[in-house]
Amino acid sequence: MLYINVINIMSVTVYFISDHTGLTVEALGRMLLSQFQLTKCDYHIKSYVNTVEKAQQLAIEIIAKNGGKIIVFSSFVNAQLREVFSKNKIEYIDLFSEFIPRLETILEKKSSAQTGLAHGVGNYHKYMLRIEAIDFALAHDDGLNNKHYEDADLVLIGVSRSGKTPTCLYLAIQLGIKAANYPITADDLHNFSLPLVLSKVKHKLFGLLIDVNRLQEIRNERRPNSTYSSLVQCQQELDHVHRLYKNEKIPFLDTTSLSIEEISTQILLQTGIEKRF
Amino acid sequence: MLYINVINIMSVTVYFISDHTGLTVEALGRMLLSQFQLTKCDYHIKSYVNTVEKAQQLAIEIIAKNGGKIIVFSSFVNAQLREVFSKNKIEYIDLFSEFIPRLETILEKKSSAQTGLAHGVGNYHKYMLRIEAIDFALAHDDGLNNKHYEDADLVLIGVSRSGKTPTCLYLAIQLGIKAANYPITADDLHNFSLPLVLSKVKHKLFGLLIDVNRLQEIRNERRPNSTYSSLVQCQQELDHVHRLYKNEKIPFLDTTSLSIEEISTQILLQTGIEKRF
Repeated sequence: MLYINVINIMSVTVYFISDHTGLTVEALGRMLLSQFQLTKCDYHIKSYVNTVEKAQQLAIEIIAKNGGKIIVFSSFVNAQLREVFSKNKIEYIDLFSEFIPRLETILEKKSSAQTGLAHGVGNYHKYMLRIEAIDFALAHDDGLNNKHYEDADLVLIGVSRSGKTPTCLYLAIQLGIKAANYPITADDLHNFSLPLVLSKVKHKLFGLLIDVNRLQEIRNERRPNSTYSSLVQCQQELDHVHRLYKNEKIPFLDTTSLSIEEISTQILLQTGIEKRF
Repeated sequence: MLYINVINIMSVTVYFISDHTGLTVEALGRMLLSQFQLTKCDYHIKSYVNTVEKAQQLAIEIIAKNGGKIIVFSSFVNAQLREVFSKNKIEYIDLFSEFIPRLETILEKKSSAQTGLAHGVGNYHKYMLRIEAIDFALAHDDGLNNKHYEDADLVLIGVSRSGKTPTCLYLAIQLGIKAANYPITADDLHNFSLPLVLSKVKHKLFGLLIDVNRLQEIRNERRPNSTYSSLVQCQQELDHVHRLYKNEKIPFLDTTSLSIEEISTQILLQTGIEKRF
Protein backbone atom coordinates (compact mmCIF):
# COMPACT_ATOMS: atom_id res chain seq x y z
CA MET A 1 0.00 0.00 0.00
CA LEU A 2 1.36 3.38 -0.97
CA TYR A 3 0.96 6.31 1.37
CA ILE A 4 1.35 9.83 0.08
CA ASN A 5 1.49 12.49 2.72
CA VAL A 6 0.14 15.46 0.81
CA ILE A 7 0.87 17.90 3.61
CA ASN A 8 4.59 17.24 3.32
CA ILE A 9 4.81 17.66 -0.43
CA MET A 10 5.71 21.30 -0.74
CA SER A 11 8.18 22.58 -3.32
CA VAL A 12 10.88 24.68 -1.66
CA THR A 13 13.70 26.43 -3.51
CA VAL A 14 16.65 27.38 -1.34
CA TYR A 15 19.52 29.70 -2.24
CA PHE A 16 22.77 29.87 -0.31
CA ILE A 17 24.52 33.06 -1.40
CA SER A 18 27.83 34.50 -0.33
CA ASP A 19 30.43 36.99 -1.48
CA HIS A 20 32.98 34.34 -0.51
CA THR A 21 32.86 30.50 -0.45
CA GLY A 22 29.42 30.30 1.18
CA LEU A 23 30.42 27.13 3.06
CA THR A 24 29.24 28.36 6.46
CA VAL A 25 25.92 29.80 5.31
CA GLU A 26 25.21 26.56 3.45
CA ALA A 27 26.03 24.45 6.52
CA LEU A 28 23.82 26.61 8.72
CA GLY A 29 20.92 26.67 6.25
CA ARG A 30 21.04 22.91 5.75
CA MET A 31 21.19 22.34 9.51
CA LEU A 32 18.10 24.49 10.07
CA LEU A 33 16.17 23.01 7.15
CA SER A 34 17.01 19.45 8.24
CA GLN A 35 14.55 20.14 11.08
CA PHE A 36 11.68 20.37 8.60
CA GLN A 37 12.14 17.11 6.69
CA LEU A 38 11.18 18.69 3.40
CA THR A 39 10.45 16.20 0.67
CA LYS A 40 10.95 18.44 -2.34
CA CYS A 41 13.79 20.84 -1.81
CA ASP A 42 15.89 22.35 -4.57
CA TYR A 43 19.24 23.80 -3.44
CA HIS A 44 21.25 26.43 -5.28
CA ILE A 45 24.71 27.39 -4.05
CA LYS A 46 25.95 30.75 -5.31
CA SER A 47 29.48 31.50 -4.18
CA TYR A 48 31.63 34.55 -4.94
CA VAL A 49 28.65 36.83 -5.61
CA ASN A 50 31.01 39.71 -4.86
CA THR A 51 29.90 42.63 -7.01
CA VAL A 52 26.70 44.65 -7.04
CA GLU A 53 26.18 43.59 -10.68
CA LYS A 54 26.39 39.87 -9.84
CA ALA A 55 24.02 40.38 -6.89
CA GLN A 56 21.49 42.27 -9.01
CA GLN A 57 21.54 39.62 -11.72
CA LEU A 58 20.98 36.91 -9.11
CA ALA A 59 18.15 38.87 -7.44
CA ILE A 60 16.40 39.12 -10.82
CA GLU A 61 16.84 35.36 -11.36
CA ILE A 62 15.34 34.62 -7.94
CA ILE A 63 12.38 36.98 -8.36
CA ALA A 64 11.62 35.34 -11.72
CA LYS A 65 11.27 31.92 -10.03
CA ASN A 66 7.68 30.80 -9.91
CA GLY A 67 5.82 28.34 -7.75
CA GLY A 68 6.53 27.07 -4.27
CA LYS A 69 8.38 28.76 -1.46
CA ILE A 70 11.73 30.47 -1.89
CA ILE A 71 14.17 30.82 0.99
CA VAL A 72 17.39 32.77 0.64
CA PHE A 73 20.22 32.43 3.14
CA SER A 74 23.14 34.77 2.64
CA SER A 75 26.42 35.74 4.24
CA PHE A 76 27.32 39.07 2.68
CA VAL A 77 30.05 40.88 4.54
CA ASN A 78 29.59 43.82 2.16
CA ALA A 79 26.48 45.80 3.17
CA GLN A 80 25.96 47.06 -0.41
CA LEU A 81 25.34 43.50 -1.56
CA ARG A 82 22.80 42.95 1.21
CA GLU A 83 20.98 46.08 0.11
CA VAL A 84 20.46 44.67 -3.37
CA PHE A 85 18.32 41.95 -1.84
CA SER A 86 16.46 44.09 0.69
CA LYS A 87 15.68 46.66 -2.03
CA ASN A 88 14.31 43.89 -4.22
CA LYS A 89 11.98 42.80 -1.43
CA ILE A 90 13.29 39.25 -1.37
CA GLU A 91 12.57 37.50 1.92
CA TYR A 92 15.99 36.46 3.14
CA ILE A 93 18.12 35.67 6.14
CA ASP A 94 21.58 37.22 6.21
CA LEU A 95 24.01 35.94 8.83
CA PHE A 96 26.03 39.09 9.13
CA SER A 97 23.17 41.55 9.54
CA GLU A 98 21.62 39.07 11.97
CA PHE A 99 24.54 38.76 14.36
CA ILE A 100 27.22 41.39 13.73
CA PRO A 101 25.38 44.32 15.40
CA ARG A 102 24.82 42.22 18.52
CA LEU A 103 28.48 41.16 18.63
CA GLU A 104 29.57 44.77 18.12
CA THR A 105 27.61 45.66 21.25
CA ILE A 106 29.04 42.77 23.29
CA LEU A 107 32.61 43.37 22.15
CA GLU A 108 32.29 47.18 22.14
CA LYS A 109 34.14 47.20 18.85
CA LYS A 110 33.28 47.76 15.19
CA SER A 111 33.59 44.82 12.80
CA SER A 112 36.06 45.09 9.94
CA ALA A 113 33.63 44.24 7.11
CA GLN A 114 36.28 42.30 5.18
CA THR A 115 35.46 39.23 3.11
CA GLY A 116 37.44 36.01 3.10
CA LEU A 117 38.48 36.08 6.74
CA ALA A 118 36.72 32.86 7.74
CA HIS A 119 37.89 30.43 5.08
CA GLY A 120 41.06 32.21 4.07
CA VAL A 121 44.42 30.47 4.09
CA GLY A 122 44.94 32.18 7.44
CA ASN A 123 48.62 31.98 7.93
CA TYR A 124 51.48 29.92 6.62
CA HIS A 125 51.75 28.10 9.96
CA LYS A 126 48.17 26.82 9.74
CA TYR A 127 48.66 25.83 6.11
CA MET A 128 51.75 23.79 6.98
CA LEU A 129 50.04 22.08 9.94
CA ARG A 130 47.27 20.98 7.60
CA ILE A 131 49.60 19.71 4.87
CA GLU A 132 51.76 17.94 7.45
CA ALA A 133 48.74 16.15 8.91
CA ILE A 134 47.52 15.10 5.44
CA ASP A 135 50.98 13.83 4.47
CA PHE A 136 51.13 11.91 7.75
CA ALA A 137 47.70 10.31 7.24
CA LEU A 138 48.60 9.24 3.69
CA ALA A 139 52.01 7.86 4.67
CA HIS A 140 50.55 5.93 7.61
CA ASP A 141 47.34 4.66 6.03
CA ASP A 142 46.35 1.02 6.36
CA GLY A 143 49.40 -0.02 8.38
CA LEU A 144 51.63 0.88 5.40
CA ASN A 145 54.33 2.42 7.50
CA ASN A 146 54.48 2.15 11.25
CA LYS A 147 57.88 3.64 11.91
CA HIS A 148 56.73 7.05 13.03
CA TYR A 149 53.85 6.23 15.35
CA GLU A 150 55.61 8.25 18.03
CA ASP A 151 54.73 11.36 15.99
CA ALA A 152 51.05 10.41 15.70
CA ASP A 153 48.36 12.09 17.79
CA LEU A 154 46.26 8.97 17.36
CA VAL A 155 46.43 5.46 15.86
CA LEU A 156 43.04 4.18 14.71
CA ILE A 157 42.55 0.41 14.64
CA GLY A 158 39.75 -1.80 13.38
CA VAL A 159 38.81 -4.35 10.75
CA SER A 160 38.96 -3.56 7.04
CA ARG A 161 36.17 -1.16 5.95
CA SER A 162 35.16 -0.02 9.42
CA GLY A 163 35.86 3.63 8.53
CA LYS A 164 39.53 4.09 9.50
CA THR A 165 40.88 5.79 6.36
CA PRO A 166 38.06 8.34 5.85
CA THR A 167 38.24 9.24 9.55
CA CYS A 168 42.03 9.74 9.46
CA LEU A 169 41.74 11.94 6.37
CA TYR A 170 38.93 14.00 7.88
CA LEU A 171 40.91 14.46 11.12
CA ALA A 172 43.90 15.68 9.08
CA ILE A 173 42.09 18.01 6.68
CA GLN A 174 39.51 19.52 9.01
CA LEU A 175 41.30 19.41 12.36
CA GLY A 176 45.03 19.17 11.59
CA ILE A 177 45.34 15.99 13.66
CA LYS A 178 48.00 13.44 12.72
CA ALA A 179 46.24 10.10 12.70
CA ALA A 180 47.69 6.80 11.52
CA ASN A 181 45.60 3.71 11.00
CA TYR A 182 46.35 0.02 11.30
CA PRO A 183 44.04 -2.76 10.12
CA ILE A 184 43.38 -5.79 12.29
CA THR A 185 43.16 -8.48 9.60
CA ALA A 186 41.95 -12.05 9.36
CA ASP A 187 45.58 -13.13 9.87
CA ASP A 188 45.48 -11.67 13.38
CA LEU A 189 42.58 -13.89 14.46
CA HIS A 190 44.91 -16.37 16.19
CA ASN A 191 46.55 -13.58 18.19
CA PHE A 192 44.86 -12.73 21.42
CA SER A 193 47.02 -9.76 22.19
CA LEU A 194 48.03 -6.59 20.39
CA PRO A 195 50.66 -6.71 17.65
CA LEU A 196 53.99 -5.44 19.05
CA VAL A 197 53.95 -2.30 16.90
CA LEU A 198 50.63 -1.30 18.50
CA SER A 199 51.39 -2.25 22.08
CA LYS A 200 54.25 0.27 22.00
CA VAL A 201 51.76 3.09 21.40
CA LYS A 202 48.85 1.70 23.39
CA HIS A 203 47.92 5.09 24.86
CA LYS A 204 47.39 6.43 21.32
CA LEU A 205 45.07 3.63 20.15
CA PHE A 206 41.40 4.08 19.40
CA GLY A 207 39.26 1.24 18.08
CA LEU A 208 36.40 1.27 15.59
CA LEU A 209 33.52 -1.21 15.55
CA ILE A 210 30.71 -1.62 13.04
CA ASP A 211 27.53 -3.68 12.79
CA VAL A 212 28.18 -7.02 11.07
CA ASN A 213 25.45 -6.62 8.44
CA ARG A 214 26.61 -3.15 7.53
CA LEU A 215 30.21 -4.36 7.26
CA GLN A 216 29.16 -7.24 5.05
CA GLU A 217 27.22 -4.88 2.79
CA ILE A 218 30.18 -2.46 2.46
CA ARG A 219 32.68 -5.27 1.82
CA ASN A 220 30.36 -6.85 -0.71
CA GLU A 221 30.46 -3.64 -2.77
CA ARG A 222 34.22 -4.03 -2.90
CA ARG A 223 34.65 -7.78 -3.41
CA PRO A 224 31.27 -9.39 -4.07
CA ASN A 225 30.69 -12.95 -2.89
CA SER A 226 34.19 -13.40 -1.47
CA THR A 227 35.33 -14.95 1.82
CA TYR A 228 36.32 -11.38 2.76
CA SER A 229 32.72 -10.23 2.44
CA SER A 230 31.09 -13.31 3.95
CA LEU A 231 28.97 -12.87 7.06
CA VAL A 232 30.97 -15.55 8.91
CA GLN A 233 34.28 -13.83 8.21
CA CYS A 234 32.93 -10.38 9.14
CA GLN A 235 31.50 -11.75 12.40
CA GLN A 236 34.74 -13.52 13.36
CA GLU A 237 36.85 -10.42 12.75
CA LEU A 238 34.45 -8.15 14.64
CA ASP A 239 34.26 -10.55 17.61
CA HIS A 240 38.04 -10.64 17.66
CA VAL A 241 38.57 -6.85 17.68
CA HIS A 242 35.79 -6.31 20.19
CA ARG A 243 37.46 -8.77 22.59
CA LEU A 244 40.82 -7.11 21.94
CA TYR A 245 39.47 -3.62 22.75
CA LYS A 246 37.90 -4.86 25.98
CA ASN A 247 40.89 -6.97 27.11
CA GLU A 248 43.41 -4.24 26.36
CA LYS A 249 41.13 -1.45 27.64
CA ILE A 250 41.29 0.47 24.35
CA PRO A 251 38.58 3.14 23.95
CA PHE A 252 36.32 2.32 21.03
CA LEU A 253 33.25 3.45 19.12
CA ASP A 254 30.56 1.78 17.02
CA THR A 255 30.53 3.68 13.71
CA THR A 256 27.46 1.98 12.18
CA SER A 257 25.05 4.89 12.37
CA LEU A 258 27.62 7.69 12.48
CA SER A 259 28.94 10.02 9.80
CA ILE A 260 32.67 10.74 9.52
CA GLU A 261 32.05 14.11 11.22
CA GLU A 262 30.34 12.38 14.14
CA ILE A 263 33.04 9.69 14.48
CA SER A 264 35.75 12.39 14.53
CA THR A 265 33.95 14.56 17.07
CA GLN A 266 33.33 11.55 19.33
CA ILE A 267 37.01 10.54 19.14
CA LEU A 268 38.09 14.03 20.24
CA LEU A 269 35.56 13.97 23.06
CA GLN A 270 36.67 10.54 24.30
CA THR A 271 40.43 11.03 23.96
CA GLY A 272 40.70 14.72 24.88
CA ILE A 273 42.82 15.37 21.78
CA GLU A 274 42.39 18.97 20.62
CA LYS A 275 42.17 20.18 17.07
CA ARG A 276 45.20 22.10 15.88
CA PHE A 277 43.43 24.96 14.11
CA MET B 1 60.16 49.28 16.87
CA LEU B 2 57.38 47.37 18.58
CA TYR B 3 53.81 48.60 18.36
CA ILE B 4 51.25 47.42 20.87
CA ASN B 5 47.70 48.35 20.08
CA VAL B 6 46.18 48.47 23.56
CA ILE B 7 42.65 48.95 22.24
CA ASN B 8 42.76 45.57 20.54
CA ILE B 9 44.04 43.61 23.50
CA MET B 10 40.86 42.36 25.05
CA SER B 11 40.53 38.90 26.53
CA VAL B 12 37.56 37.08 25.03
CA THR B 13 36.44 33.58 25.99
CA VAL B 14 34.22 31.90 23.45
CA TYR B 15 32.15 28.74 23.92
CA PHE B 16 30.67 26.73 21.07
CA ILE B 17 28.09 24.41 22.60
CA SER B 18 25.88 21.83 20.96
CA ASP B 19 23.83 18.79 21.82
CA HIS B 20 25.38 17.22 18.72
CA THR B 21 28.77 17.71 16.96
CA GLY B 22 28.69 21.51 17.16
CA LEU B 23 30.51 21.78 13.81
CA THR B 24 28.07 24.27 12.29
CA VAL B 25 27.79 26.55 15.31
CA GLU B 26 31.58 26.62 15.57
CA ALA B 27 31.95 27.49 11.87
CA LEU B 28 29.37 30.27 12.17
CA GLY B 29 30.83 31.68 15.39
CA ARG B 30 34.36 31.71 13.99
CA MET B 31 33.16 33.35 10.77
CA LEU B 32 31.45 36.13 12.72
CA LEU B 33 34.33 36.63 15.14
CA SER B 34 36.87 36.72 12.30
CA GLN B 35 35.34 40.13 11.53
CA PHE B 36 36.66 41.49 14.82
CA GLN B 37 40.33 40.51 14.58
CA LEU B 38 40.54 39.68 18.25
CA THR B 39 44.06 39.27 19.52
CA LYS B 40 43.36 37.25 22.64
CA CYS B 41 40.60 34.78 22.09
CA ASP B 42 40.21 31.53 23.96
CA TYR B 43 37.95 28.97 22.25
CA HIS B 44 36.15 26.10 23.98
CA ILE B 45 34.27 23.54 21.93
CA LYS B 46 31.69 21.55 23.89
CA SER B 47 30.03 18.88 21.78
CA TYR B 48 27.38 16.36 22.82
CA VAL B 49 26.07 18.47 25.71
CA ASN B 50 22.86 16.48 25.39
CA THR B 51 21.39 16.19 28.88
CA VAL B 52 20.08 18.82 31.28
CA GLU B 53 22.72 17.69 33.80
CA LYS B 54 25.60 18.26 31.36
CA ALA B 55 24.16 21.65 30.38
CA GLN B 56 23.79 22.73 34.02
CA GLN B 57 27.34 21.70 34.85
CA LEU B 58 28.64 23.64 31.86
CA ALA B 59 26.56 26.71 32.75
CA ILE B 60 28.09 26.69 36.25
CA GLU B 61 31.58 26.41 34.73
CA ILE B 62 30.92 29.37 32.43
CA ILE B 63 29.45 31.56 35.18
CA ALA B 64 32.52 30.84 37.31
CA LYS B 65 34.83 32.23 34.60
CA ASN B 66 36.27 35.55 35.60
CA GLY B 67 37.75 38.42 33.65
CA GLY B 68 37.23 39.50 30.08
CA LYS B 69 34.23 39.01 27.88
CA ILE B 70 32.44 35.72 27.49
CA ILE B 71 30.49 34.85 24.35
CA VAL B 72 28.46 31.67 24.09
CA PHE B 73 27.23 30.35 20.74
CA SER B 74 24.96 27.33 20.90
CA SER B 75 22.93 25.07 18.66
CA PHE B 76 20.57 23.24 20.98
CA VAL B 77 17.74 21.51 19.17
CA ASN B 78 16.30 20.56 22.55
CA ALA B 79 14.52 23.59 24.07
CA GLN B 80 15.07 22.27 27.62
CA LEU B 81 18.82 22.64 27.16
CA ARG B 82 18.43 26.21 25.92
CA GLU B 83 16.39 27.01 29.02
CA VAL B 84 19.29 25.99 31.26
CA PHE B 85 21.31 28.85 29.79
CA SER B 86 18.54 31.46 29.68
CA LYS B 87 17.57 30.66 33.30
CA ASN B 88 21.20 31.11 34.33
CA LYS B 89 21.23 34.56 32.72
CA ILE B 90 24.16 33.75 30.44
CA GLU B 91 24.31 36.07 27.44
CA TYR B 92 24.24 33.70 24.52
CA ILE B 93 23.31 33.28 20.88
CA ASP B 94 21.43 30.11 19.99
CA LEU B 95 21.06 29.30 16.31
CA PHE B 96 17.84 27.35 16.63
CA SER B 97 15.89 29.84 18.72
CA GLU B 98 17.22 32.55 16.40
CA PHE B 99 16.01 31.10 13.11
CA ILE B 100 13.59 28.20 13.60
CA PRO B 101 10.53 30.33 14.50
CA ARG B 102 11.05 32.44 11.39
CA LEU B 103 11.44 29.37 9.18
CA GLU B 104 8.30 27.84 10.74
CA THR B 105 6.40 30.94 9.63
CA ILE B 106 7.85 30.89 6.10
CA LEU B 107 7.32 27.15 5.66
CA GLU B 108 3.99 27.09 7.54
CA LYS B 109 5.20 23.92 9.25
CA LYS B 110 6.45 22.95 12.71
CA SER B 111 10.07 21.83 13.04
CA SER B 112 10.77 18.31 14.25
CA ALA B 113 13.15 19.22 17.10
CA GLN B 114 15.33 16.17 16.51
CA THR B 115 19.10 16.21 17.06
CA GLY B 116 21.67 14.76 14.70
CA LEU B 117 19.84 15.50 11.48
CA ALA B 118 22.47 17.82 10.03
CA HIS B 119 25.65 15.79 10.44
CA GLY B 120 24.12 12.34 10.60
CA VAL B 121 25.20 9.54 8.30
CA GLY B 122 22.11 10.41 6.27
CA ASN B 123 21.59 7.40 4.15
CA TYR B 124 23.60 4.48 2.92
CA HIS B 125 23.65 5.95 -0.59
CA LYS B 126 25.38 9.14 0.60
CA TYR B 127 27.81 7.13 2.72
CA MET B 128 28.80 5.01 -0.26
CA LEU B 129 29.24 8.06 -2.55
CA ARG B 130 31.62 9.53 -0.02
CA ILE B 131 33.65 6.34 0.44
CA GLU B 132 33.78 5.78 -3.32
CA ALA B 133 35.11 9.31 -3.90
CA ILE B 134 37.76 8.89 -1.17
CA ASP B 135 38.85 5.50 -2.56
CA PHE B 136 39.06 7.07 -6.02
CA ALA B 137 41.17 10.01 -4.83
CA LEU B 138 43.58 7.70 -2.99
CA ALA B 139 43.90 5.25 -5.89
CA HIS B 140 44.49 8.08 -8.38
CA ASP B 141 46.75 10.30 -6.33
CA ASP B 142 49.96 11.69 -7.80
CA GLY B 143 49.55 10.02 -11.19
CA LEU B 144 49.80 6.61 -9.50
CA ASN B 145 47.13 5.03 -11.62
CA ASN B 146 45.67 6.63 -14.68
CA LYS B 147 43.60 3.80 -16.07
CA HIS B 148 40.25 4.99 -14.83
CA TYR B 149 40.33 8.68 -15.67
CA GLU B 150 37.10 8.14 -17.60
CA ASP B 151 35.38 7.70 -14.21
CA ALA B 152 36.84 10.91 -12.78
CA ASP B 153 34.78 14.08 -12.42
CA LEU B 154 38.01 16.05 -12.57
CA VAL B 155 41.77 15.56 -13.11
CA LEU B 156 43.88 18.14 -11.30
CA ILE B 157 47.30 18.90 -12.73
CA GLY B 158 50.21 21.01 -11.51
CA VAL B 159 53.76 20.88 -10.22
CA SER B 160 54.69 18.97 -7.08
CA ARG B 161 53.44 20.72 -3.89
CA SER B 162 51.02 23.09 -5.58
CA GLY B 163 48.09 21.69 -3.56
CA LYS B 164 46.76 18.87 -5.75
CA THR B 165 46.48 16.08 -3.17
CA PRO B 166 44.83 18.08 -0.35
CA THR B 167 42.36 19.53 -2.85
CA CYS B 168 41.44 16.09 -4.26
CA LEU B 169 40.92 14.71 -0.75
CA TYR B 170 38.79 17.69 0.29
CA LEU B 171 36.68 17.38 -2.88
CA ALA B 172 36.11 13.70 -2.08
CA ILE B 173 35.36 13.98 1.64
CA GLN B 174 33.34 17.18 1.70
CA LEU B 175 31.70 17.15 -1.72
CA GLY B 176 31.74 13.52 -2.92
CA ILE B 177 33.59 14.50 -6.12
CA LYS B 178 35.90 11.95 -7.76
CA ALA B 179 39.11 13.82 -8.47
CA ALA B 180 42.36 12.32 -9.73
CA ASN B 181 45.60 14.23 -9.79
CA TYR B 182 48.62 14.07 -12.05
CA PRO B 183 51.92 15.82 -11.37
CA ILE B 184 53.73 17.69 -14.12
CA THR B 185 57.33 16.90 -13.17
CA ALA B 186 60.76 18.19 -14.08
CA ASP B 187 60.98 15.33 -16.60
CA ASP B 188 58.13 16.88 -18.56
CA LEU B 189 60.01 20.16 -19.09
CA HIS B 190 61.11 19.17 -22.59
CA ASN B 191 57.54 18.35 -23.63
CA PHE B 192 55.59 21.25 -24.98
CA SER B 193 52.31 19.40 -25.17
CA LEU B 194 50.18 17.35 -22.81
CA PRO B 195 51.14 13.78 -21.95
CA LEU B 196 48.93 11.38 -23.93
CA VAL B 197 47.14 10.13 -20.82
CA LEU B 198 46.00 13.68 -20.09
CA SER B 199 45.12 14.74 -23.61
CA LYS B 200 42.54 11.94 -23.70
CA VAL B 201 40.66 13.60 -20.82
CA LYS B 202 41.40 17.20 -21.69
CA HIS B 203 37.87 18.37 -20.86
CA LYS B 204 38.34 17.10 -17.28
CA LEU B 205 41.64 18.89 -16.63
CA PHE B 206 42.09 21.75 -14.19
CA GLY B 207 45.49 23.31 -13.52
CA LEU B 208 46.96 24.70 -10.31
CA LEU B 209 49.56 27.45 -10.13
CA ILE B 210 51.41 28.84 -7.12
CA ASP B 211 53.78 31.72 -6.44
CA VAL B 212 57.41 30.67 -6.92
CA ASN B 213 58.60 31.86 -3.50
CA ARG B 214 55.77 30.08 -1.73
CA LEU B 215 56.48 26.89 -3.69
CA GLN B 216 60.14 27.08 -2.83
CA GLU B 217 59.33 27.52 0.85
CA ILE B 218 56.94 24.53 0.88
CA ARG B 219 59.37 22.29 -1.04
CA ASN B 220 62.19 23.33 1.23
CA GLU B 221 60.27 22.01 4.25
CA ARG B 222 60.16 18.65 2.49
CA ARG B 223 63.64 18.41 0.96
CA PRO B 224 65.81 21.23 2.27
CA ASN B 225 68.53 22.62 -0.01
CA SER B 226 67.81 20.22 -2.87
CA THR B 227 67.56 20.86 -6.60
CA TYR B 228 63.86 20.09 -6.15
CA SER B 229 63.47 23.01 -3.77
CA SER B 230 65.75 25.44 -5.61
CA LEU B 231 64.25 28.69 -6.85
CA VAL B 232 65.52 28.03 -10.40
CA GLN B 233 63.88 24.61 -10.56
CA CYS B 234 60.60 25.91 -9.10
CA GLN B 235 60.53 28.79 -11.59
CA GLN B 236 61.24 26.54 -14.59
CA GLU B 237 58.50 24.11 -13.65
CA LEU B 238 55.97 26.87 -13.00
CA ASP B 239 56.79 28.63 -16.28
CA HIS B 240 56.33 25.31 -18.05
CA VAL B 241 52.91 24.49 -16.59
CA HIS B 242 51.69 28.05 -17.01
CA ARG B 243 52.57 27.90 -20.74
CA LEU B 244 50.94 24.49 -20.98
CA TYR B 245 47.67 25.73 -19.41
CA LYS B 246 47.54 28.69 -21.76
CA ASN B 247 48.50 26.77 -24.93
CA GLU B 248 46.09 23.95 -24.23
CA LYS B 249 43.34 26.26 -22.94
CA ILE B 250 43.09 24.45 -19.61
CA PRO B 251 41.27 26.40 -16.86
CA PHE B 252 43.60 27.16 -13.98
CA LEU B 253 43.88 28.89 -10.62
CA ASP B 254 46.66 30.45 -8.56
CA THR B 255 46.47 28.78 -5.14
CA THR B 256 49.06 30.95 -3.35
CA SER B 257 46.73 32.89 -1.10
CA LEU B 258 43.86 30.40 -1.06
CA SER B 259 42.82 27.77 1.48
CA ILE B 260 41.80 24.28 0.34
CA GLU B 261 38.15 25.31 0.85
CA GLU B 262 38.61 28.31 -1.41
CA ILE B 263 40.47 26.34 -4.10
CA SER B 264 37.69 23.71 -4.13
CA THR B 265 34.87 26.25 -4.29
CA GLN B 266 36.61 28.13 -7.12
CA ILE B 267 37.09 24.89 -9.09
CA LEU B 268 33.38 24.11 -8.80
CA LEU B 269 32.49 27.63 -9.87
CA GLN B 270 34.83 27.56 -12.90
CA THR B 271 34.04 24.03 -14.08
CA GLY B 272 30.34 23.87 -13.23
CA ILE B 273 30.85 20.51 -11.50
CA GLU B 274 28.23 20.01 -8.78
CA LYS B 275 28.80 18.47 -5.39
CA ARG B 276 27.21 15.05 -4.97
CA PHE B 277 25.72 15.53 -1.50
